[in-house]
Amino acid sequence: MALSSLAGRLDRCSVNTATLGYQRPIGESIEAIARAGFGAIAPWRREVEDGDVAGIARQIRDAGLTVSGYCRSTYMPAPDRTAFEAGIEDNRRALRDAATLGAACYLLVVGGLPQGSRDLQAARRQVQEAIECLLSDAMALGVPLALEPLHPMYAADRACINTIDQALDVCATLDPHRNKPLGVAIDVYHVWWDPNLYPAIARAGADRRVLAYHVSDWLVPTTDLLLDRGMMGDGAIDLPAIRAAVEAAGYGGPVEAEIFSAQTWWKRPIAENLAVCAERFQAMC
Amino acid sequence: MALSSLAGRLDRCSVNTATLGYQRPIGESIEAIARAGFGAIAPWRREVEDGDVAGIARQIRDAGLTVSGYCRSTYMPAPDRTAFEAGIEDNRRALRDAATLGAACYLLVVGGLPQGSRDLQAARRQVQEAIECLLSDAMALGVPLALEPLHPMYAADRACINTIDQALDVCATLDPHRNKPLGVAIDVYHVWWDPNLYPAIARAGADRRVLAYHVSDWLVPTTDLLLDRGMMGDGAIDLPAIRAAVEAAGYGGPVEAEIFSAQTWWKRPIAENLAVCAERFQAMC
Repeated sequence: MALSSLAGRLDRCSVNTATLGYQRPIGESIEAIARAGFGAIAPWRREVEDGDVAGIARQIRDAGLTVSGYCRSTYMPAPDRTAFEAGIEDNRRALRDAATLGAACYLLVVGGLPQGSRDLQAARRQVQEAIECLLSDAMALGVPLALEPLHPMYAADRACINTIDQALDVCATLDPHRNKPLGVAIDVYHVWWDPNLYPAIARAGADRRVLAYHVSDWLVPTTDLLLDRGMMGDGAIDLPAIRAAVEAAGYGGPVEAEIFSAQTWWKRPIAENLAVCAERFQAMC
Repeated sequence: MALSSLAGRLDRCSVNTATLGYQRPIGESIEAIARAGFGAIAPWRREVEDGDVAGIARQIRDAGLTVSGYCRSTYMPAPDRTAFEAGIEDNRRALRDAATLGAACYLLVVGGLPQGSRDLQAARRQVQEAIECLLSDAMALGVPLALEPLHPMYAADRACINTIDQALDVCATLDPHRNKPLGVAIDVYHVWWDPNLYPAIARAGADRRVLAYHVSDWLVPTTDLLLDRGMMGDGAIDLPAIRAAVEAAGYGGPVEAEIFSAQTWWKRPIAENLAVCAERFQAMC
């Protein structure tokens, strides 16, 4: 597959602030990411919700950045109806902030099993119902919902949507005519192992569902299920092949680095971390 | 789905010696497992290969145990042809021992990416070729090959076969007429998250491919990718639902506990560990 080069194209690259380990206030992250030459940022609610959302949005714009995504939804499956509806309300509030930020999408990390439950199918039904509830808000606010399948190792506690195909099935059920702001986020860390990866990416493209593309790498060995992601190029994932497939499927948006790495990258100074990201985006992705 | 009870049926239950943490020589494990009332054992090559294989086989028989499976294959994907063929030879030797032990099957944990490779599809092709090579030996020796899909978190370094459907596809390619000793091992730890789990189990049954069924549990949180499996009942997996599906698919063989647990169960005395296994088999599986 032909692959566009990212060399000299940091304007196409985005940094998820999780990559910086939330070390500094969002204002400093915005300036550092812009200074390093990137074209976009993906902030987290924890950095935004208690602050001046409109002011943060303005600072991002003034820095010349776009917002490749807003992270992330409150988990949807809940042990009772009250908790389920509280989750939806939380997500509605966050969607309004996503609109203020001008985010390209709102990331749906859907949640796993409610406390004490072993019924994964019931959790999946709750996810579908919750997304259905949020779609009208998303439409009214003009913020697409990006359903993100997470790696199966998170099925119990973070997301019971675990493959691109499964996410696309949910999209097809809730939006059969493909006229609603609903799609998928493809994160290589979560999907690289999938035996049906390439057909699933092609299907996502044919359905016009690709809303975001995230990169990092799978380290061997991986020492922590959550906080040991690798920098692009340091692991087992064939990043150029996957990006080629995603772009062949019609995606032309930002390529976003999202690297949870408590023991390695979060310990580096932000500027150094960003410099390595910039280098790896251009050489290894 | 109707579910046969395992209460009073430890004769249907097997203990994989990995559950005991390889604390004691195989002879002691055999005696302890038999004394606790189980009907079967699944030993590892590391406990068998340097010993008197025929003697171990005799001891197992004399203790009244059957062998639910022999663990496990040498990894198949290799960086070059010499290493690939050496792996096959290793597996041939182990298959002969599996026959001596009277094992119900030889577990194929197929391996991940060869050192330095990011080509998962090439690794998968090598796996298919290796299994094809081993099938004639398996047939001659009367030992079925049980292809075990491993959890996607092991795709890079332990097994690039990661779903039941993917394993069944390999089986269908290599044995289209279903007259060879080739099938799958279903281990709940590896497959419980799969959105297509129940159809895949039904398909495995329809294809007459279910050769083994392994149980443990998925802990929340899981603190180690390899050695933090839970005892049945302590985690997120709906064990009765999965066993019901496996039995509805026609499997009537042993239910085997395989619990890698460095910080919890491997620290308990073997007799205590086996007593808890026995209790959980009967109440929680």
